[in-house]
Amino acid sequence: MYSKEMYELGAHSSVIREIFEYGKRRKAEIGDDRVFDFSLGNPSVPAPPVVNETIKKLCDTMEPTALHGYTSAVGDQGVRDAIAQYLNRTYGTAFSAKNFYMTAGAAASLSITFKALTEPGDEIILFAPFFPEYSVFAKAAGALPVIVKCLPDTLQIDFDALERAVTPQTKAVVVNSPNNPSGVVLSEETVLRLCAFLEHKQKEYGKPIFLISDEPYRELVYDGVTVPYLTKYYANTVVCYSFSKSLSLPGDRIGYILVPDEVANSGEIYKAVCGAGRALGYVCAPSLFQFLVPACLGQTSDVSIYKHNRDLLLAEFARDGFSVAKPDGAFYLFLKSPVESAADFCEKAKDFELLLVPSDSFGFPGYVRISYCVATGMIERALPAFRKLAEAYGTLKD
Amino acid sequence: MYSKEMYELGAHSSVIREIFEYGKRRKAEIGDDRVFDFSLGNPSVPAPPVVNETIKKLCDTMEPTALHGYTSAVGDQGVRDAIAQYLNRTYGTAFSAKNFYMTAGAAASLSITFKALTEPGDEIILFAPFFPEYSVFAKAAGALPVIVKCLPDTLQIDFDALERAVTPQTKAVVVNSPNNPSGVVLSEETVLRLCAFLEHKQKEYGKPIFLISDEPYRELVYDGVTVPYLTKYYANTVVCYSFSKSLSLPGDRIGYILVPDEVANSGEIYKAVCGAGRALGYVCAPSLFQFLVPACLGQTSDVSIYKHNRDLLLAEFARDGFSVAKPDGAFYLFLKSPVESAADFCEKAKDFELLLVPSDSFGFPGYVRISYCVATGMIERALPAFRKLAEAYGTLKD
Repeated sequence: MYSKEMYELGAHSSVIREIFEYGKRRKAEIGDDRVFDFSLGNPSVPAPPVVNETIKKLCDTMEPTALHGYTSAVGDQGVRDAIAQYLNRTYGTAFSAKNFYMTAGAAASLSITFKALTEPGDEIILFAPFFPEYSVFAKAAGALPVIVKCLPDTLQIDFDALERAVTPQTKAVVVNSPNNPSGVVLSEETVLRLCAFLEHKQKEYGKPIFLISDEPYRELVYDGVTVPYLTKYYANTVVCYSFSKSLSLPGDRIGYILVPDEVANSGEIYKAVCGAGRALGYVCAPSLFQFLVPACLGQTSDVSIYKHNRDLLLAEFARDGFSVAKPDGAFYLFLKSPVESAADFCEKAKDFELLLVPSDSFGFPGYVRISYCVATGMIERALPAFRKLAEAYGTLKD
Repeated sequence: MYSKEMYELGAHSSVIREIFEYGKRRKAEIGDDRVFDFSLGNPSVPAPPVVNETIKKLCDTMEPTALHGYTSAVGDQGVRDAIAQYLNRTYGTAFSAKNFYMTAGAAASLSITFKALTEPGDEIILFAPFFPEYSVFAKAAGALPVIVKCLPDTLQIDFDALERAVTPQTKAVVVNSPNNPSGVVLSEETVLRLCAFLEHKQKEYGKPIFLISDEPYRELVYDGVTVPYLTKYYANTVVCYSFSKSLSLPGDRIGYILVPDEVANSGEIYKAVCGAGRALGYVCAPSLFQFLVPACLGQTSDVSIYKHNRDLLLAEFARDGFSVAKPDGAFYLFLKSPVESAADFCEKAKDFELLLVPSDSFGFPGYVRISYCVATGMIERALPAFRKLAEAYGTLKD
């Protein structure tokens, strides 16, 4: 009749979406101002002015058939040139346009990359906690997701667990730093150890293991923390980037896949990326948003607002006796549930109109994700609710 | 190492793309004005002014976090409402927002629909000549494309051939009217006969057979020709629409899938569409271009330019003794090769700097596709070249 597998995917919306829908109903009941919805990762800080200014300028100055026309399937050459030059200036790399394939955002970047790299039966290692759609995209590509839990508390990579998980079928390892859902940034120490480990395994198995770096949150880091640029640490790195979060335009769907020359069989893999984009129906990344990119490279939304939000919550959680994974980036906090069941904790939080996401669907039970890409005013109003939640669990300090 | 199947898809660019690339090289050699490139289906008429005006207005008036934010995965409710109302006014239908799933253009609409409707081993019937990517999308969904050639000359459906091709594994039949590559519009007589045939086969097999109507060229018709609205003729119709051609914004990637209530298991199929969109990495259709749609419904680029282009070519081909399939819509002419091999004819045409696409890759040998979505000036300059081509084949009249 129809694809049961696709029906199941469509019928069971994510836990996050369910909580968000509950929040909408609850707001209708008791008022917008009285519900504290920390469920969604939708940027709350507006796009920087350069975005709308550039869009309007493109409308006024560019030939409409070029502005709105197809670009080549890999993306406009000038746009890819500009991105290469920006990265080379910023990270001391040596990319050129031919290493880039423009995509309709991070989900497209990952779906295409998984499809390009894997053959049926291949395994893709995901470090938990991870964005749940990774697993959907990996399965859609015919690959098998293999979950490796991070170390508790630090959420850095557990290398003993990784050693147990890697097999000759391992095709790729996905890292996401800064991380959704935890906000944790992989330290350079972790990165160095991961790359050495992968080099060793490549030699052992006599085949490449790709490191897929999903980095939509690269620019969202606080307190001067640095996010290592992975292509400089490991040759077989493929970068999946999106401008969704850095520029606050997640709906516009624009990003890229970067296949450096150093990747084994780089040329063939780039072609496989092109083929996967074609098979998945992408044609080209949205043209107008491709042409927007050069003017916006190196710019971000006002990240200081996210930092302020984060600091308000961190100060509160310290008073409340809640512990949090080291929150260096993205706009998420990963708070340890004071009881074993994060779902129970989230239910209790609803008594105080706090909408939090239990971490089970991120593959790492016992925590809740708090998205702080929300209005600062809502956070300020929510602080007493968190205090009451802490009181209810007896964790409140002083 | 990587997916061989995706590599093959990426490495072998389409014949159309190869001809286009040849044209670029040739123009560099002898000058832009002296090469007559009829290879690509990229709209040459600019988007109507309402497009850029609305984009700028949205930038000036809409909250940036809403304009550039995620919409729900199925698309913005208000946008889907507006499309439903427009279609209801125009075609006397009774759709509502819940029947629509916004997509990133026709290729996404088809890829998602194929993936949603089919399970491995299902067959999808394609009428040749057809857009070659249909076959790519069908195979990517795990389905088997089954080719049914249209009647020579009229290019209407060959019902004897269809009868032979339909099996209990037939899940869907794809129609594309006006057609790429031929410009032919299916007559109401053909539509009625097709629907009666499918009804009969549904009863015979005791299962639904879906009619997938791919209609990016719906509004591009000439001389008052009407394109039947298929949901009114056959209950199990799913419409795949794109604004790419009617509004000349193919690069911006915006369209929709329409699953009417009358479709068998409509609710479940809509969910399967949602699931397929999710599995293919689509997240949501580009937000800004969703919000553009309501202001543009019922508007098109200046279609009279395409008509003028078509008429110039038709008059020339009549003099030249070239015969053409009835050219009622889209911006393609399907010209019968005066020799058996369309590839040979296209090679000969290159002697006169005419770049035409042989029809073999459209599944219907012996013709060439001529895309007349080009500057009228180029067509005027090309007419003597067509005459010389006719002279070379001895088909020239008087």
